[in-house]
Amino acid sequence: MGEIRIIPLTGIPEVRPGDDVGALVGDALERAGGLEEGDVLVVAQKVVSKAEGRVEQTDDVLEVILREARAVRRRRDDLVIADTEHGFVCASAGVDRSNTPGEGWVLLLPHDPDASAARIRDVLEERFGIAPAVVVSDSFGRAWRQGTTDVAIGVSGMRPLLDLRGTDDAGGRPLESTIIAVADELAGAAELVMGKAAALPAALVRGYRVTPGDGSARELVMPPERDLFP
Amino acid sequence: MGEIRIIPLTGIPEVRPGDDVGALVGDALERAGGLEEGDVLVVAQKVVSKAEGRVEQTDDVLEVILREARAVRRRRDDLVIADTEHGFVCASAGVDRSNTPGEGWVLLLPHDPDASAARIRDVLEERFGIAPAVVVSDSFGRAWRQGTTDVAIGVSGMRPLLDLRGTDDAGGRPLESTIIAVADELAGAAELVMGKAAALPAALVRGYRVTPGDGSARELVMPPERDLFP
Repeated sequence: MGEIRIIPLTGIPEVRPGDDVGALVGDALERAGGLEEGDVLVVAQKVVSKAEGRVEQTDDVLEVILREARAVRRRRDDLVIADTEHGFVCASAGVDRSNTPGEGWVLLLPHDPDASAARIRDVLEERFGIAPAVVVSDSFGRAWRQGTTDVAIGVSGMRPLLDLRGTDDAGGRPLESTIIAVADELAGAAELVMGKAAALPAALVRGYRVTPGDGSARELVMPPERDLFP
Repeated sequence: MGEIRIIPLTGIPEVRPGDDVGALVGDALERAGGLEEGDVLVVAQKVVSKAEGRVEQTDDVLEVILREARAVRRRRDDLVIADTEHGFVCASAGVDRSNTPGEGWVLLLPHDPDASAARIRDVLEERFGIAPAVVVSDSFGRAWRQGTTDVAIGVSGMRPLLDLRGTDDAGGRPLESTIIAVADELAGAAELVMGKAAALPAALVRGYRVTPGDGSARELVMPPERDLFP
């Protein structure tokens, strides 16, 4: 394994409903020198949601959160930990009051972030002749740990989990914790250049060999029967 | 923010109790061209634990896990989710049966991973005249999500959390989810080059501006009064 580069994609304008994220990212990619075989593109959920019109104006954010939530796991003051329609567990069921078009607006998660990723991938393949793996990322809090990390809520053209079962460790003994959430690590790595406040909604990860395939970010969701923290 | 490079540090030999991890990593760094100001070094817990003699032979792994655990949160079959002495919540209280010196051996977490990171940092500063930020990483499972990601269990020379409270988003409105667990994202990014099976226990992250300071990975632990999933 050689070195990995995380390349910020700069100059992407403010995204509005109806915009083609793939085209806007494509322009940024062209400025960055284009795509290479094996590249992974990470795009922030906020621009995907905006382009898909998943914004709304409300004077009752809690009402929107409870409508977006398939189930509420915990509430403390105005913190709501909820399951989204996709099965993700996160604060406010993914409803975001920052990064919106203005005061009183909220941003909702895309209905099908895998499909959003696939559309971006198709546009880029059409333009560059190379189809990158695409990750749609969002900042999630975690149980037991402070701070958010970016994780994958949508993927296209890659397996989100790297399954090393059957692989040996360096000493020749079978590995134990052997399923790695590489899509989440890629999203977190991209966050390091995208930042939170900067208007930098996309980054390229170059040099990481993803496992190609028809993956879905739903594979990252713990199935209910294995969920020890309902 | 420019691009970030994640550089694998190759050729580190099998680590044994009493070895100086800082010296071994220093040799690998020298082969990779040395340190630059602002570099973050990520070192896998397994080599730190081995060097510190945190290995033991047992025919009853569960007994070791329960001894290492400060509290057990959940059990299902042979999966034990437990609090470690440091306050981390993870599988098997961090006791690892792979990456060990041999059959019947287990690897335990360092008693004070921040101190482990600080020792490595001191050795490297002595040798190169530059003190990198150091992260000791381990692979943790997560509630609600499949697969492990690498997170920070020890840090030195950096703040593990990036606190953006008081910062505005690109549209000039206050950010919401504003504390980012950058040490965990750095650990996860490094995992992408270190892999699990490869004998590659360290990587350098170059180009990410950490917030310098006397940080501790314990800042990443959710305090009990804010823990919604006890």
